[in-house]
Amino acid sequence: MSDDQMNEISRRVLAAVGLSDAAIVDVGQSLPDADRLLASYIDHTSLKPEATPRQIEQLCAEARRYAFASVCVNPFYVPLCVEALHESDVAVCTVVGFPLGATTTEVKIFETRQAIADGASEIDMVIAIGKLKAGDYPAVYNDIAAVVAVCRDRGAISKVIIEAALLSDEEKIAACVLAAHAGADFVKTSTGFASGGATTADVGLMRRVVGSQIGVKAAGGIRTREEALAMISAGATRIGTSAGVRIVADEGGTR
Amino acid sequence: MSDDQMNEISRRVLAAVGLSDAAIVDVGQSLPDADRLLASYIDHTSLKPEATPRQIEQLCAEARRYAFASVCVNPFYVPLCVEALHESDVAVCTVVGFPLGATTTEVKIFETRQAIADGASEIDMVIAIGKLKAGDYPAVYNDIAAVVAVCRDRGAISKVIIEAALLSDEEKIAACVLAAHAGADFVKTSTGFASGGATTADVGLMRRVVGSQIGVKAAGGIRTREEALAMISAGATRIGTSAGVRIVADEGGTR
Repeated sequence: MSDDQMNEISRRVLAAVGLSDAAIVDVGQSLPDADRLLASYIDHTSLKPEATPRQIEQLCAEARRYAFASVCVNPFYVPLCVEALHESDVAVCTVVGFPLGATTTEVKIFETRQAIADGASEIDMVIAIGKLKAGDYPAVYNDIAAVVAVCRDRGAISKVIIEAALLSDEEKIAACVLAAHAGADFVKTSTGFASGGATTADVGLMRRVVGSQIGVKAAGGIRTREEALAMISAGATRIGTSAGVRIVADEGGTR
Repeated sequence: MSDDQMNEISRRVLAAVGLSDAAIVDVGQSLPDADRLLASYIDHTSLKPEATPRQIEQLCAEARRYAFASVCVNPFYVPLCVEALHESDVAVCTVVGFPLGATTTEVKIFETRQAIADGASEIDMVIAIGKLKAGDYPAVYNDIAAVVAVCRDRGAISKVIIEAALLSDEEKIAACVLAAHAGADFVKTSTGFASGGATTADVGLMRRVVGSQIGVKAAGGIRTREEALAMISAGATRIGTSAGVRIVADEGGTR
């Protein structure tokens, strides 16, 4: 897709929600020293519904040992992680409207408030996918903006999951434009619960749309160091994976 | 598994939450006239995150035409369904803590309240699966009981999704015992988002555990009339499926 086509979609989406046509397409994003910083890119993730408290404690211990960016867990495990990660630099990240994105905005706000009150400092929320597909951009924008506002008020980082596997390229662009203009700190590819996860093509597209001002988180199906580095090369600044230990311990192998 | 073994598990689970050992194992459940009543058993379901408002309107039109028990939709589509099903006998059913069950109890309460305020009269909630697996029965019980209490206060039906595919038989029994004692109106096999859906073996086990006093809803992967009737024969009194039209229109074929 050409920059012109992408800008045209961006303009149309923004007009639908009454926002100005700021230029947000900017491909420049210098890569960090991937090898040295790899661990600091990783959200060490366990979102399976059957994960037990003991498994979550293990996740926290690994995150502390490897100095991952965060642990990413389901909401009811936030207090446990806050306690397990006391006096570490590892953030506690949780999910909102997860993984379908089909709860009401009011529920997403309530979840976000409680998660932050419980000690989470990063919130990964899922957009209203069906409404995006129907072209109801104001609803999608307001849903994102409401969660982002709660995060900003309370000093938490917000990531907006677009669930790329379910979207056309045009819908991916629209979602990223809306998230960026709503003030999100990151756009994120996937929940890990849909038919597909992160692809370098999607990460590259998302980076082109949001420019260098905000983060791009690649998540879903990233199992090896090679895959993680490919995502970073494509523009990702955060990696969501349950294979963080293997990725960091693996000195460049491909497996 | 023998009745004795089942009762032993039941006793242990109830003791853990400080409840009395009421006899709730009772296999008697007379089958309704499956052919004639089939449509009235069906929760006509669309829970895909990418479903659009137009598709949900179509679901409602079908539910009205076939006189299904309910439409089962994601929370943000409840108001649309209430409007589309005005002056019909079709209930609006929605989901809470769905599909992972891993939100906090407070969030599940908030979701339930809002869904009922929006016009839903049936609430399918997902249990705290990881906590069940860890044997934290009080947490699982309190989570269910809190949602059931909101439903009872407001005249809504509650269904408790145990996500059988992720559970051992012992865990399935524990979940059903807790749901029945918490006052739920139904236990339900599956979300449709896990690795497996309803099986006749699980439905039969669940019916044995809860006796005849409350409902059993089979959901997940039921695509044909034959499968639906097999679930009813095994003890199901409600069928969650996206193939309701096909099931009712299909005069006994097996496909």
